[in-house]
Amino acid sequence: MLVEGKYYRSIWLDESDPAIVRVINQNRLPFFFEIKELCTVDDIYSAIKDMTVRGAPLIGATAAFGVYLATLEIIATTNSRLHLENAARYLTSCRPTAVNLSRAVNFVMDKLKNDNPGNSISDTARIAALEFCENEMESCRQIGIHGLPLIEEISKKKGGDPVNILTHCNAGWLACIDYGTATSPIYQAHDAGIPVHVWVDETRPRNQGARLTTWELGKAGIPHTLITDNTGGHLMQHGMVDIVIVGSDRTTLRGDVANKIGTYLKALAASDNAIPFYSAFPSSTFDFSIKDGLSGIPVEEREPQEVSVVEGLSGNKTEYVRICPDDTRCANYAFDVTPAKFITGLITEKGICKPAEKDIKKMFSDKFI
Amino acid sequence: MLVEGKYYRSIWLDESDPAIVRVINQNRLPFFFEIKELCTVDDIYSAIKDMTVRGAPLIGATAAFGVYLATLEIIATTNSRLHLENAARYLTSCRPTAVNLSRAVNFVMDKLKNDNPGNSISDTARIAALEFCENEMESCRQIGIHGLPLIEEISKKKGGDPVNILTHCNAGWLACIDYGTATSPIYQAHDAGIPVHVWVDETRPRNQGARLTTWELGKAGIPHTLITDNTGGHLMQHGMVDIVIVGSDRTTLRGDVANKIGTYLKALAASDNAIPFYSAFPSSTFDFSIKDGLSGIPVEEREPQEVSVVEGLSGNKTEYVRICPDDTRCANYAFDVTPAKFITGLITEKGICKPAEKDIKKMFSDKFI
Repeated sequence: MLVEGKYYRSIWLDESDPAIVRVINQNRLPFFFEIKELCTVDDIYSAIKDMTVRGAPLIGATAAFGVYLATLEIIATTNSRLHLENAARYLTSCRPTAVNLSRAVNFVMDKLKNDNPGNSISDTARIAALEFCENEMESCRQIGIHGLPLIEEISKKKGGDPVNILTHCNAGWLACIDYGTATSPIYQAHDAGIPVHVWVDETRPRNQGARLTTWELGKAGIPHTLITDNTGGHLMQHGMVDIVIVGSDRTTLRGDVANKIGTYLKALAASDNAIPFYSAFPSSTFDFSIKDGLSGIPVEEREPQEVSVVEGLSGNKTEYVRICPDDTRCANYAFDVTPAKFITGLITEKGICKPAEKDIKKMFSDKFI
Repeated sequence: MLVEGKYYRSIWLDESDPAIVRVINQNRLPFFFEIKELCTVDDIYSAIKDMTVRGAPLIGATAAFGVYLATLEIIATTNSRLHLENAARYLTSCRPTAVNLSRAVNFVMDKLKNDNPGNSISDTARIAALEFCENEMESCRQIGIHGLPLIEEISKKKGGDPVNILTHCNAGWLACIDYGTATSPIYQAHDAGIPVHVWVDETRPRNQGARLTTWELGKAGIPHTLITDNTGGHLMQHGMVDIVIVGSDRTTLRGDVANKIGTYLKALAASDNAIPFYSAFPSSTFDFSIKDGLSGIPVEEREPQEVSVVEGLSGNKTEYVRICPDDTRCANYAFDVTPAKFITGLITEKGICKPAEKDIKKMFSDKFI
């Protein structure tokens, strides 16, 4: 997407030195637009862990580059298989909920395993990581194409009045490589001249909505309004939301969706007010090994300080303020699981399907051969 | 309640000068415990408007003292009836959602209207305001007595394991004069030796949970954990919440409850997980003139800066940080309405009743003569 007229992806290889992975430092947005260099497996691990990069598709892509950087760390005396397997395990362990992480690492590792022994291991890993990124990007583009008619239809029903879309967290191009998942149909609608307005949940504790989604939509010139996470239900009760579109960090075989904490509450409100609720994600987000998301998907617990301390801009620098007494205990669950019954449909690169095992198996029959 | 061993209410008349109303400045908690003096009707209005005092019962009580202070502003040349009616209208207009405000103002005004002409108008107003406070305080105490068995029963079922109570915003003694509404049964349970643990929603945008409820519970020695507003659904899905108790800013004849924005989302989650959901309030919070809360209760919209800017402690002073791009538009609805069908029961000073017109009319039959 364009940032001040220049095209960016959220991750890329340095043009002059392909041993350097570059990412937009998402911990500095929206106040500072900074590019960060990642040169080692440890850099990659830290960037995923501290959320320099975040969003299920992007942490997958970053980890894919992590395996590539691991191949560059191999020297003559290294047991390269052991080294790579350790790196893969290390990268996969970084964050537990998004399945894209292990999916991406496995993608590159499989390419290495099945590669022609004559090829350079680094070339193979680099090409595989880039291929993974291209696939994810293309999936996100397709998600937009498949999701667009949903918005188009509402727009027609409303006689061209703006379509009010509510989204939670950031499932935009920053969370992916380009286009975004939840935002991809929104960008497509905007490009097609359909008036849209996005309600952006701030998404405590890390405020990815307030910091990243607002920034993205602002750069793209899409009308939007920031709200607290408490607000969506009230808006839905009063006819101020036409459709909810969120991302996913892991979707099960029966269509349960793990996504940023609070997603479940919005799904409940959408259901209570008969508002369509969609989850958009590339198929790398599916975990067909799990049916019941509530019992099967591990939910990450993060540092309590993310709850007790808020980062923001004061003057021209970022500051941290504590919002509670200094001895208050905090709990910080990063995701929740929305049961399939509250989801209208899943928007994937293959099209929209119902969140039901039968429909998912049918649409992704190639994965069940 | 006790603060560092000294007994406080959230509002009182200065002992040596009864023309001064004193309140705990709730905008400074939990970082600084400061008492503020209110000496004029304008002081009272500002204190309610800027949320120096907040919480439906307390803004009622404060406004009652406002009418009393208005009587002190009467001089020889004043048209006292007109002056008081203007003051009453002014005070009532201050915040739109909590009905306690007009109820309290009317209570004192009615006493003035029906008073013996021989009595001092100021004495009558002062006595009426104090009576209103005493009534509210006693109601809150009774709410605790009626709510206690709910917690006791869960405790027994759990074999004495801590009862996990989720609450939203601050419906504690700070929001009332003493005891609190939602917290009153919790304090009673704690005093009775029943182990409890409270999940405290931070309650964006003004963080009354993070700032006030944590402070209150901490002072009372009650175990509690601060969570983001997004978290309650996840906790309920995983059996980590036994009961939800919230306050109310206005309850309709059929039992719809207007309360702090986000309450509705917690009610939906409680309903989906078969967890009892109670609203606790003194009967001054009833508005029998309205049945349908969604269409009938005005929902206050507050300054967008409450969403875009967060106040907290940095070092030893409070600071403000912006959490979004500087040109981001924000919306700030302060309350939402939870339809009666998602509420298990209403805890009032007269006992617990179902949120249904028939039951409400039966319990409050004295108001329907």
